Amino acid sequence: MRGAWAGLAAAAALGLALAVLVWRRRPRPVREVLFFPSQPICTEALLAEAAAPGAGSRPRPCPCPLPRGDCALGRLLRRLLSARRSLELCLFAFSSPPLARAVQLLHRRGVRVRLVTDAQSMAMKGSQIGLLRHAGIQVRHDQESGYMHHKFAIVDGRMLLTGSLNWTTQAIQSNRENVLVLEDEEYVKAFLDEFERIWEEFDPRNYSFFSKDSK
Amino acid sequence: MRGAWAGLAAAAALGLALAVLVWRRRPRPVREVLFFPSQPICTEALLAEAAAPGAGSRPRPCPCPLPRGDCALGRLLRRLLSARRSLELCLFAFSSPPLARAVQLLHRRGVRVRLVTDAQSMAMKGSQIGLLRHAGIQVRHDQESGYMHHKFAIVDGRMLLTGSLNWTTQAIQSNRENVLVLEDEEYVKAFLDEFERIWEEFDPRNYSFFSKDSK
Repeated sequence: MRGAWAGLAAAAALGLALAVLVWRRRPRPVREVLFFPSQPICTEALLAEAAAPGAGSRPRPCPCPLPRGDCALGRLLRRLLSARRSLELCLFAFSSPPLARAVQLLHRRGVRVRLVTDAQSMAMKGSQIGLLRHAGIQVRHDQESGYMHHKFAIVDGRMLLTGSLNWTTQAIQSNRENVLVLEDEEYVKAFLDEFERIWEEFDPRNYSFFSKDSK
Repeated sequence: MRGAWAGLAAAAALGLALAVLVWRRRPRPVREVLFFPSQPICTEALLAEAAAPGAGSRPRPCPCPLPRGDCALGRLLRRLLSARRSLELCLFAFSSPPLARAVQLLHRRGVRVRLVTDAQSMAMKGSQIGLLRHAGIQVRHDQESGYMHHKFAIVDGRMLLTGSLNWTTQAIQSNRENVLVLEDEEYVKAFLDEFERIWEEFDPRNYSFFSKDSK
């Protein structure tokens, strides 16, 4: 009987050790905050590496005078470029050229990109929305008097990027802004549900461009 | 010896049961997402209850025709009004009367309120910043060409409220917006550090209102 107790205790200890090992090896969910303004950097190497993975050992030399290196914009780009299957974008304003290039690159790589934006904002000078549409990316927008003021992205249905940052050069380089990065099932689900609600509601077949009272 | 093993096993089981009990009784950290627009509601009862806790059984009747009830604005107000010690506010735009009343109420209740805002936005029509300053609340602002575009609040150094929502009636009632509510030490610390950095940097003693080149 004493042997049986000892065996039980040993089995329990082994199980516990295995559980700790598995828990420790599981990659920790991403939890990050990016604060802006971000210094201007050259994003060529980052985008070239994403366009042709593996060729990173021979990066194309870029003649621009901007520094390379880590910064909030670079980290935001890296998170986006990690997408393999899907990217949902819900953005009030989108005029940043490197972010637009990253989104086009993902689209070309076969990632399913869907973009919701604000009708008034997308008509502004410098907006990248026309260019993204021209590249074949699905875009939908509001037709309301209020703004579609969200600024979030969902990568592969698993990572949420959300905050105060509009995707504009002014916001990135000059404003005080934040972006939270969360790999968190509960928050991702809440934002994905919101995205799907808006996506259906902004279906072009529902566009009327009339006030509710007109017939 | 058999008795000793049995005793050990019983003690382990008791310890485990106690741990589970303690873990289950610990209040779950707040994790919430508020989506806007929020329907217009009457916030009188909520603010009156916060002004005179305990008198809730006899709420003051309010003659306005707005409905009572739960909504995103009501939940945002409740989270704010839970402050007992401190409230840090970092807001691009602040023109919502019920949110301004809540902040004044907390200030009167002895909560240490500090507010950072954007110089251009606070000069706009409807801004509540002058009123809050008049009530004795500490306010600091940028003097930069870029915007102080954050929209976050930290309650008692333990709860972060952050998102796309400017504290304006238009944003609350008409825009698509989000506010994350997190009781999460890591994220709260990151935003509190950002707040303290900006608070120091925007110290009025550093205001120059001259360009960097002028002497």
